[in-house]
Amino acid sequence: MDDCLFCAIAARRLPAEIVLDEPDVVAFLDAAPLFPGHVLVIPRRHLVTLEDLPTGLLTIVFEAAQRLSVAVRDATGAQGSFVAMNNVVSQSVPHQHVHVVPRTKGDGLRGFFWPRQRYADDAHQHRTGDAIRAALPTRPRSNPQG
Amino acid sequence: MDDCLFCAIAARRLPAEIVLDEPDVVAFLDAAPLFPGHVLVIPRRHLVTLEDLPTGLLTIVFEAAQRLSVAVRDATGAQGSFVAMNNVVSQSVPHQHVHVVPRTKGDGLRGFFWPRQRYADDAHQHRTGDAIRAALPTRPRSNPQG
Repeated sequence: MDDCLFCAIAARRLPAEIVLDEPDVVAFLDAAPLFPGHVLVIPRRHLVTLEDLPTGLLTIVFEAAQRLSVAVRDATGAQGSFVAMNNVVSQSVPHQHVHVVPRTKGDGLRGFFWPRQRYADDAHQHRTGDAIRAALPTRPRSNPQG
Repeated sequence: MDDCLFCAIAARRLPAEIVLDEPDVVAFLDAAPLFPGHVLVIPRRHLVTLEDLPTGLLTIVFEAAQRLSVAVRDATGAQGSFVAMNNVVSQSVPHQHVHVVPRTKGDGLRGFFWPRQRYADDAHQHRTGDAIRAALPTRPRSNPQG
């Protein structure tokens, strides 16, 4: 898309520190990182959210994220990684992107996964489960190992 | 593994509200959710981090996370989703798991992705990119579209 920031980076029409450049997937440094080495992995094709990725491309994007989680960790001397994506809410650029962030104990990001809640009771938890099971899309027939 | 909490849930030796139960992948409600409907997607096989997933299982796990991101959003009346995993650091259970969390604007989780940093200068950013490129594992030959 002509007006998409990430399409422009993938096409090298806008500058970015690209760390992986393959036919279907591109990764580059986030210019405002949580920590240096924070990369964004994107499909080259303009797709907006996780649900828009066809299965073949899903594999390619997450296989790249997998390799980058190792590379980002090792390149920065970190101990682990945080791999995440926002769909619609908190998604700053409407082109699907996976954040890969190096993590080290005591780096200050520990608090992001709080505060946690509790279900009111078992019935509340069970009703929530029912609603999710009912909303679950059927498995795509294209699944290679389905 | 006998002493793994998530292996026990997948084998139904410990109770959990299971929302997806397939040969290679299981998903269940996190008992201490960020928001009700927060699920964890796990490979049934005991693997510890993202990097341990072979490509076929990677596809299966993320295809399940993809379907659950839709189901969790729709079941809770949310607007979007947050899909994330911790590898080693902040990983509470050493069995690979993908968090799928419903998101709605103004839900209070917006701040988790801050504070952001800046690279000292272009040279710092370029050196970081060099280190990641050098650390990148080679692409597995098993990639179905490689």
